[in-house]
Amino acid sequence: DGTVGANKNSIKIIGDHTDMYAQGYFAYDSKKSGGLTISHLRFGKKPIKSTYYITKANFVACHKPSYVNVYDMVEDLKPGGSFLLNCEWNEKELDEHLPAKMKRYIARNNINFYTINGVKLGKEIGLGGRINTILQSAFFTITGIIPKEKAIQYMKDAATKSYSRKGEKIVKMNHEAIDRGANEFVKVHVPEAWKDAVDNTTVKKVNCGDPALTEYVNNVLIPANRHQGDKLPVSAVLKMANGTVPSGSAAYEKRGIAIDVPEWNPANCIQCNTCSYVCPHAVIRPAVLNAEEVAKAPKSMKMKDMTLMPGLKFAITISTLDCTGCGSCATVCPGMRGNKALTMKPMETQLASQEGFDYGQKLSPKPEVAKKFRPTSVKGSQFHKPLLEFSGACAGCGETPYAKLATQLFGDRMYIANATGCSSIWGGSAPATPYTRNEKGYGPAWNNSLFEDNAEFGYGMALANDAIRGRLADYVKEIQAADDASDTLKTASKEYLDTAESSVANREPTDRLIAELQKAAKGSGKTAELAKKTLADKDYLAKKSIWIFGGDGWSYDIGFGGLDHVLASGENVNVLIFDTEVYSNTGGQASKATPMGSVAQFAATGKSTKKKDMPGMFMTYGYIYVAHVAMGADYNQTVKALTEAESYNGPSIIIAYAPCINQGIKGGMGISQLEEKKAVAAGYWKNFRYDPRLAAQGKNPLQLDSREPKASYRDFIMGEVRYNSLTRSFPQRAEELFSKAEKDAKQDYEHLAVLAGKKD
Amino acid sequence: DGTVGANKNSIKIIGDHTDMYAQGYFAYDSKKSGGLTISHLRFGKKPIKSTYYITKANFVACHKPSYVNVYDMVEDLKPGGSFLLNCEWNEKELDEHLPAKMKRYIARNNINFYTINGVKLGKEIGLGGRINTILQSAFFTITGIIPKEKAIQYMKDAATKSYSRKGEKIVKMNHEAIDRGANEFVKVHVPEAWKDAVDNTTVKKVNCGDPALTEYVNNVLIPANRHQGDKLPVSAVLKMANGTVPSGSAAYEKRGIAIDVPEWNPANCIQCNTCSYVCPHAVIRPAVLNAEEVAKAPKSMKMKDMTLMPGLKFAITISTLDCTGCGSCATVCPGMRGNKALTMKPMETQLASQEGFDYGQKLSPKPEVAKKFRPTSVKGSQFHKPLLEFSGACAGCGETPYAKLATQLFGDRMYIANATGCSSIWGGSAPATPYTRNEKGYGPAWNNSLFEDNAEFGYGMALANDAIRGRLADYVKEIQAADDASDTLKTASKEYLDTAESSVANREPTDRLIAELQKAAKGSGKTAELAKKTLADKDYLAKKSIWIFGGDGWSYDIGFGGLDHVLASGENVNVLIFDTEVYSNTGGQASKATPMGSVAQFAATGKSTKKKDMPGMFMTYGYIYVAHVAMGADYNQTVKALTEAESYNGPSIIIAYAPCINQGIKGGMGISQLEEKKAVAAGYWKNFRYDPRLAAQGKNPLQLDSREPKASYRDFIMGEVRYNSLTRSFPQRAEELFSKAEKDAKQDYEHLAVLAGKKD
Ligand SMILES: Cc1ncc(C[n+]2csc(CCOP(=O)(O)OP(=O)(O)O)c2C)c(N)n1
Ligand SMILES: Cc1ncc(C[n+]2csc(CCOP(=O)(O)OP(=O)(O)O)c2C)c(N)n1
Ligand code: SF4
Ligand code: SF4
Ligand code: SF4
Ligand code: SF4
Ligand code: SF4
Ligand code: SF4
Repeated sequence: DGTVGANKNSIKIIGDHTDMYAQGYFAYDSKKSGGLTISHLRFGKKPIKSTYYITKANFVACHKPSYVNVYDMVEDLKPGGSFLLNCEWNEKELDEHLPAKMKRYIARNNINFYTINGVKLGKEIGLGGRINTILQSAFFTITGIIPKEKAIQYMKDAATKSYSRKGEKIVKMNHEAIDRGANEFVKVHVPEAWKDAVDNTTVKKVNCGDPALTEYVNNVLIPANRHQGDKLPVSAVLKMANGTVPSGSAAYEKRGIAIDVPEWNPANCIQCNTCSYVCPHAVIRPAVLNAEEVAKAPKSMKMKDMTLMPGLKFAITISTLDCTGCGSCATVCPGMRGNKALTMKPMETQLASQEGFDYGQKLSPKPEVAKKFRPTSVKGSQFHKPLLEFSGACAGCGETPYAKLATQLFGDRMYIANATGCSSIWGGSAPATPYTRNEKGYGPAWNNSLFEDNAEFGYGMALANDAIRGRLADYVKEIQAADDASDTLKTASKEYLDTAESSVANREPTDRLIAELQKAAKGSGKTAELAKKTLADKDYLAKKSIWIFGGDGWSYDIGFGGLDHVLASGENVNVLIFDTEVYSNTGGQASKATPMGSVAQFAATGKSTKKKDMPGMFMTYGYIYVAHVAMGADYNQTVKALTEAESYNGPSIIIAYAPCINQGIKGGMGISQLEEKKAVAAGYWKNFRYDPRLAAQGKNPLQLDSREPKASYRDFIMGEVRYNSLTRSFPQRAEELFSKAEKDAKQDYEHLAVLAGKKD
Repeated sequence: DGTVGANKNSIKIIGDHTDMYAQGYFAYDSKKSGGLTISHLRFGKKPIKSTYYITKANFVACHKPSYVNVYDMVEDLKPGGSFLLNCEWNEKELDEHLPAKMKRYIARNNINFYTINGVKLGKEIGLGGRINTILQSAFFTITGIIPKEKAIQYMKDAATKSYSRKGEKIVKMNHEAIDRGANEFVKVHVPEAWKDAVDNTTVKKVNCGDPALTEYVNNVLIPANRHQGDKLPVSAVLKMANGTVPSGSAAYEKRGIAIDVPEWNPANCIQCNTCSYVCPHAVIRPAVLNAEEVAKAPKSMKMKDMTLMPGLKFAITISTLDCTGCGSCATVCPGMRGNKALTMKPMETQLASQEGFDYGQKLSPKPEVAKKFRPTSVKGSQFHKPLLEFSGACAGCGETPYAKLATQLFGDRMYIANATGCSSIWGGSAPATPYTRNEKGYGPAWNNSLFEDNAEFGYGMALANDAIRGRLADYVKEIQAADDASDTLKTASKEYLDTAESSVANREPTDRLIAELQKAAKGSGKTAELAKKTLADKDYLAKKSIWIFGGDGWSYDIGFGGLDHVLASGENVNVLIFDTEVYSNTGGQASKATPMGSVAQFAATGKSTKKKDMPGMFMTYGYIYVAHVAMGADYNQTVKALTEAESYNGPSIIIAYAPCINQGIKGGMGISQLEEKKAVAAGYWKNFRYDPRLAAQGKNPLQLDSREPKASYRDFIMGEVRYNSLTRSFPQRAEELFSKAEKDAKQDYEHLAVLAGKKD
């Protein structure tokens, strides 16, 4: 929520305007949304030499009410210190919500306890969840380090300086936040009874089904998430000494970080599944219930008759505690006759929906649904469990919906080589793993390589698979030719070999082959020997889908040489690029994907060169499948591109437009899907697919999926801070760069249209 | 000459067919042509544990007659040992040519002295200069390690195995070489008088004009080239501790390695200068003499009236001792009415031409010639001294003519960042430096970086120049505005600033500015101070031409990511790629530049993917100048491309087709220019230029310089071992790959023609 920035700012104010020495030390976790940050601020008249965490504080502020039940918030306060809690609770509610341990500490140590309703203030001011300035102002008033009036002035000056780039309105809102933060906190009357408060809850162990996961979640994930990871004994992690952790642990975080979450109104729902398709966090999902399941469903669970599937009920389920509150689902929901089926409501009012979600996870598989709705369609894909769920990506992140969709399509047979970047952080931030497994226990095998050699890393996975499967295929061929092999085994072998190169088609023949091999292995003789040797590596038998994930910083810049080499090799690998047009994970540095005129780190005056035409470069090979997609502009094109890429027995690359907090979308990240749509409508981004198989059929390999842009390019870019800020900082240069970029964008569309045979 | 291969083969024969232990140790220098190799072969009944050089040999063979005057050839022989000298000398001539020291050693130590006329035999058999098999066979017969008949059989078996890939004819020739080598050596009768032979020459010191170069040549280059580099004292190299060596030292090697060299017949010469244009070693050059110079010319110097320049004489001069005998000049010489003006003749008959060459180097500059014949034309460029001369590249190398031409165009103001590869070996192999300086002392500043980051290395040079020159330009601007600056200084400043971005135009204004600054610096006050500060970095004042050189292994593969990044940056750098279609320096590994069907290291069955379309990739940027050139197909296009690239104030890349010994051109490297011509005629290579400046003028930026291919693609590739060998090793695959490659080549031409607006 910008707290670190505000704290750094506080240090600066104190350092500049008092004779005190100041020190700031910040401890982060790696969650992009709802992550925990602890700021340790030291001030004093003597030079500060210590660099330890602060454990004897005069002041502690807690910015999230939910933390009171998770972390030890007050134990580091000195007796007589001050505690500021951001929450909407009155004194009675405080009594209900605070844990006994905290109450006892506050009461017994004479702590000055204050609350402030930052969220309400933020909404009123128009700052939404960005409550840091409000709390900063309260901090100055409560601690009195600097006289109140002066502190307010210093803060306002700093705000003017920081935000003038973003416009007058933002500056005003921050000034209001400072005024109200300084005045609208409340001193809590601490009841005597708190001194002897007793706990009425006990920590209970989680059971995840899978023993390894259960052990991991209880012994590692939960303590680490309570900020007690440093206290873990080595024995707790010894089982992971080879670097692997059980997948699926993010589902046990249930962080409850959203302020508002979606509420489903079945009456307006057309069962399109788009909400589920776009949810960056896999929080909202369709469930399908048969009569029996309907009967046993929790009372709170809403549902409606399923379209085209008589006898079945359809429900949109929401994992409230995993929701980030981004609002993307509600944004895209078409609803009925202009009435949305999803509305954002305060989390507190929606807690019950969790049981519906949890129940939805336990329902029986419905093959008839998979048959009716193609798994490779927008709607059909959503009836398949996302094998990437509840990641710590920013609320509304544009990257995760693509990755999630890929796991719904291929997750049961996927290897993922992941470049360093946001996708390696939301993809696998210790202690939680959002990649998970389906009901059969199949899920992506995921690993993060170095930033620079991720393509090579995935290539290695592919080559290793080729080598092992090549050997296994030789055994299977020997079995096929063996005198002592049964006819059923021979048939299974043939079916296996016939489908060996298709990851979709090969799964079932593999299962049948394994069953036959297991029978044969019980015998003796040549076939039994071969069967045993084959079974020794049976996990490798089924054709895998090799994926290479990464951002534009990796793919356009630092890892480009390797990426080019791997794609040029002709190997059957699939590359998915999350193109945020900057190095997102490190705070928005310009990459070669950054378009002309965009402001970024290292391009403070707007990037002067145009976005690199990476798809154009890879299309020169002729044997690489290349797609350029923006989900929000064409849901269908994205799922088509992913499916085509995967099925192509050769190298594929999909470059996916991914809105990101670093772009500064005016309407916030909740409209990131709309932003993608606008980008295409304005000709800022083009959707197309280049399929070498079409060329082999004598057709034009290039299909331009975007229609001729009609909307204004300039209007589009003005909706993002990365562009509109330049009109304030360097108006003339902005004009030059923007008009050139606009012209280039038009030309690029023309060029594609010609190549695609739409124009000449 | 393949001696190392032959010696390895000998070791194998001895190891396999006797009970002796064998060891081979090979000492090389890094010259690509006429390089020195010493093979140390040990055999014995006891296991060999020593790894020292051999200094007590039973047998020494010297494959090059010229070595007798350069190296101590016999001193490592045991008394009674055998010495085999390859030469065409009879006993009388031996007496004339051998140094006294060698004669004394042979006579006093009872050495068995044999000669063999390998070159004559080689020519008769059809092996040309590849005399290694002949000498190997003589070695076996003379030493008698294995009985003669058996040894012959073993050698023939080995030859059959090695050469069958190259065809029946090659095998036959090698068998003949074995038979004749075993029989046609001659035992020399050693005269008693040799015991007391006295030296009639003394080593005299070289004077190079420049003291630093003189010191370097005498104290380092000459001893190192005599194989006494290991004995140099540290003091000899202390001056080069910062890693720089004086340029131009290769001219003092005068290695005399050619067998045949060109003889000029003025009667047939049309003064086209093509011979000079293509010579890989800068050995053959036009000279222009005025009446006075004609009068003083050496008698042996041939000349004729210069066309279009009354009163001047024209001569083609040849530095016989630097010639590699590749024959490229004679191949391209158009001559008159079908009669060539150049014919290859035995070196011995042409020694006199050296004095004509040396005299030609001392002639006065002729501004009228430079005016008449544009320095940026094929003919005109050759009147400018090549600032890359006498490199150790392979005879007929396809890379060096491009680099040499670049130095004739821009050498006086060039920085070269050179990737590791052949170009870093012929470009700067200790102890000799072929990059040199013109009469004013200006020449390329050259450096070799790591293989992988050469583009970045050159980028750094450019950025450093930008930074320094930017600072200097600020001083000059201040001077322009200063009250106390003279009018002449202000004018000089203006002219300097007006031309600051053109490396051609900026030289003279810079010289004038420096002169004015030197005057001003003598005074006092603001301008004097600024003048002093500017002069402190005066070497940086003139606009430099930044070049980045490297091979296809570097540019298409290992350094591609960096190359892309640097070109994308928009910085004014010029990249010249020597595209040999393999990693040449390390013996011919496949790169992404290797075309489909070509056999290479790591592609023994022919490369299965097509050549990467690197120019196509870089053309996607729109602001990069891109040229694809093959000198031999269009002399004029190459010089045009280099000139355009350099003059473009932005990034440029020229990809130059470079025949190489690793390709196995049927007619040998002497026809490499013809091979380039054939490549283009067959549509194997396309010449084109993409100039962003044309687009800015509303024209089509792409100019396709190659005409529609008419010759047979298949015939062309069959003329090179890298292709034709596949028809023997994998005939069916060859057929598939070749026909696909042929189809692709046609399509690629069509595609370019469409882009260039020649077709639609
Ligand atoms: C060689 C190297 N350089 C820098 C970094 C630091 N680093 C980690 S992630 C990252 C940014 C990744 O950006 P991008 O590839 O665009 O992915 P995104 O975060 O936008 O998804 C950087 C620079 C690194 N890990 N390795
Ligand atoms: C990183 C690295 N890998 C390998 C080498 C070894 N090496 C030196 S030169 C060379 C081949 C260069 O080939 P290319 O770039 O095509 O230039 P050419 O020799 O053909 O002119 C190689 C592989 C090296 N120096 N550095
Ligand atoms: S608000 Fe965001 S995270 Fe929550 S369900 Fe909707 S799309 Fe998913
Ligand atoms: S997007 Fe809206 S209409 Fe579509 S399934 Fe979700 S809730 Fe229903
Ligand atoms: S890509 Fe952007 S929005 Fe997504 S997690 Fe990274 S910083 Fe957040
Ligand atoms: S033979 Fe070769 S090296 Fe000698 S002058 Fe001719 S082209 Fe140059
Ligand atoms: S190529 Fe032949 S004709 Fe032309 S200048 Fe040289 S010697 Fe004369
Ligand atoms: S490029 Fe080829 S011909 Fe030239 S020096 Fe290297 S190996 Fe020799």
